[in-house]
Amino acid sequence: MSLFPSSLETLIDKLASLPGVGAKSAQRLAFHILALSDDDANAFADAIRDAKGSVHRCRLCQNLTDDELCPVCASPRRDSGIVCVVSDPKGALAIERAREYNGVYHVLHGVISPMTGVTPDDLCIRELAHRVASGNVSEVIMATNPDTEGETTARYISRLLAPFGVKITRLAYGIPVGGSLEFADDATLTRALEGRLDY
Amino acid sequence: MSLFPSSLETLIDKLASLPGVGAKSAQRLAFHILALSDDDANAFADAIRDAKGSVHRCRLCQNLTDDELCPVCASPRRDSGIVCVVSDPKGALAIERAREYNGVYHVLHGVISPMTGVTPDDLCIRELAHRVASGNVSEVIMATNPDTEGETTARYISRLLAPFGVKITRLAYGIPVGGSLEFADDATLTRALEGRLDY
Repeated sequence: MSLFPSSLETLIDKLASLPGVGAKSAQRLAFHILALSDDDANAFADAIRDAKGSVHRCRLCQNLTDDELCPVCASPRRDSGIVCVVSDPKGALAIERAREYNGVYHVLHGVISPMTGVTPDDLCIRELAHRVASGNVSEVIMATNPDTEGETTARYISRLLAPFGVKITRLAYGIPVGGSLEFADDATLTRALEGRLDY
Repeated sequence: MSLFPSSLETLIDKLASLPGVGAKSAQRLAFHILALSDDDANAFADAIRDAKGSVHRCRLCQNLTDDELCPVCASPRRDSGIVCVVSDPKGALAIERAREYNGVYHVLHGVISPMTGVTPDDLCIRELAHRVASGNVSEVIMATNPDTEGETTARYISRLLAPFGVKITRLAYGIPVGGSLEFADDATLTRALEGRLDY
C-alpha cells in the first residue's frame, strides 16, 4: 500500500526527474514544499510557468532573454564587432562576471559530441555563420570549455568561419591565477609553457 | 548587468531556497526546467500546486493524505489498537516498507527541540493523547529516531501517557542486521548488550 497521497507521489516523481536529485532528496524537497505557505508554494509553481513561458533566445546571440534582444546585444556601449562564442549561457555569465569583456556573445547551446549524438546542426552554429557573413564582425573569440568536446567544437567553427576572413582567437590556457604549479596537471603546464609571454 | 532574464532569476532563486540546493545547483536545475517541453514544465508547476492544494493531515493519525483518512487508518485490516508513534511521514514509510507492522501510526510532525524552539505544543502530541484517552488504544510503540531529540520526545510522551495505563514500548536498539561489530559505535554496542536476548 502506498502510504503517500498520489499528488504527493507525483510531486516527488517530478522532483526526482531533475538532474542530480535522487529519490531520497526528492522526498525531502517535496516535504519542504508542502511545508511552505500556500502563497510561497504557488509562487514556486508560477516561477516555473513564468520562466518557461517568457524565456526564449536572443534574436542575435541566442542567449536566454525575455526580450527580443538580450541586455548585452541591446546595449549601445558594447562592441558588436567582437563576438565571444560560448557553449552555454553559464559561460557568458562567467565571462560577464569578470567585468573585463566589452564585446558581445554567441551562445551555441551545446557542444559537438558524437558520443551523445550532438551534431553541428543541433547547435546555433548556422546563426553564428550568418552574423559573421553579414560583415559587421571583426573578431570571433572561441571560449568553449577547454575539454575535448569544447576543443572539437571550437576547431570545427574556426574552420567553418575561415573563408570569411574574420580574425579568430581563443581564450588563453595556463596556470589559474592563485593556483599552484604543484597542483597543475601536465596538459595545463604544457599549455602554459607553450603560451609563455615576454616580461 | 544581470545577464539572465528576471523570470529565470526568480526561478533560480526559488530553486535555491530548497534545502540542500546551492546557487550552482539551482542554476543547473533551472536550465533543465527551461529545456523541458511546455507540457512537462506545466505538469511540474501543476504538481506543486496539486500537492500543496490536496495534501493535508489524516484526521486520526496526522499522516499526510489527500482523503479524510489515510490508507492505513482507513484499512479494516489494520489493528487500530496498536499505535506506532513516528516523528514524520518518512518514519511511517520506512516501517511500512518492512511489511511486518499491522497496527496504525501517529505522526508527530517533528521532535521536541529546545535548540530550534520546537516545544511539545508545536507537535501533534495533543491529538495522540486524545486517541489514547478515547480508550481504544492498547499499546503505543515509540518509534522516534534514536537520537537525543527523538529520545527526549519519546520520554516526554511516555510520561504524558502513563496516567492512561496504556502499554508503552519502544523499538529495540542494537546492531543493524548485516552490519559489522567492528563498525558499530559504542552507544549502539552498549544498547545491544543491554538488550541481549536468550538463545
